[in-house]
Amino acid sequence: MCVFCKIINNEIPSYTIYENDYVKCFLDISQATKGHTLIVPKKHVENVFALDSIEASEVMKAAVVVANLLKTKLKVENINLLNNSGSLAGQTVMHFHLHVLPRYGCDEIDFHQVEHEPNFVELDKLYKSLIN
Amino acid sequence: MCVFCKIINNEIPSYTIYENDYVKCFLDISQATKGHTLIVPKKHVENVFALDSIEASEVMKAAVVVANLLKTKLKVENINLLNNSGSLAGQTVMHFHLHVLPRYGCDEIDFHQVEHEPNFVELDKLYKSLIN
Repeated sequence: MCVFCKIINNEIPSYTIYENDYVKCFLDISQATKGHTLIVPKKHVENVFALDSIEASEVMKAAVVVANLLKTKLKVENINLLNNSGSLAGQTVMHFHLHVLPRYGCDEIDFHQVEHEPNFVELDKLYKSLIN
Repeated sequence: MCVFCKIINNEIPSYTIYENDYVKCFLDISQATKGHTLIVPKKHVENVFALDSIEASEVMKAAVVVANLLKTKLKVENINLLNNSGSLAGQTVMHFHLHVLPRYGCDEIDFHQVEHEPNFVELDKLYKSLIN
């Protein structure tokens, strides 16, 4: 089973900040910027080419919810949404996911997603600030 | 009126490859990669924070349609979707738009959207190959 399916099934814990019947939205453990969140359809779908209408709709509706949550909680006014579909586009986990990337002006995002070492103390603090 | 509203109203011509009641999808005249398309809600909405449920749904459903059109016509298997919301995130036209960016493996995308000089001969050729 793919790593995102395991997260969806709660076999792997996650910092889930928003969830409904169709999508799960959790903090990327490798935070490119503070608040970096992944929006993942619960059904295993590989990439944008394979999304059906319901999943496509629910992914973008969740992006709006998450963007406004980050706006309220982190006072961020600038955000990038990014999906990598296909390995030549930078996709590493072959389950569709949309990155929500807050931008703070002084940051340069590594769009090529070099893995950072997760800081679980910071993640935990951030998670609590977002869900409370 | 913003430049995308003028395109939507056909006051400015565009290479529109897909359109319905909610969205218009047209080739970016500054092609970051071959097939680079913008998906724009017909209602003037500034950014991801302000999208309502219908527009959010329709934008992503259109992204799937456009991705599969590019896959069929240009044989592209890899795509990035990118939205810049807010000037610090790289937004220059203040009307929500989702970039659909085909990736061919040998290309490095300029995510910072430096303007290229449009090549209208190539755009016209590409447009005809996509709509036929």
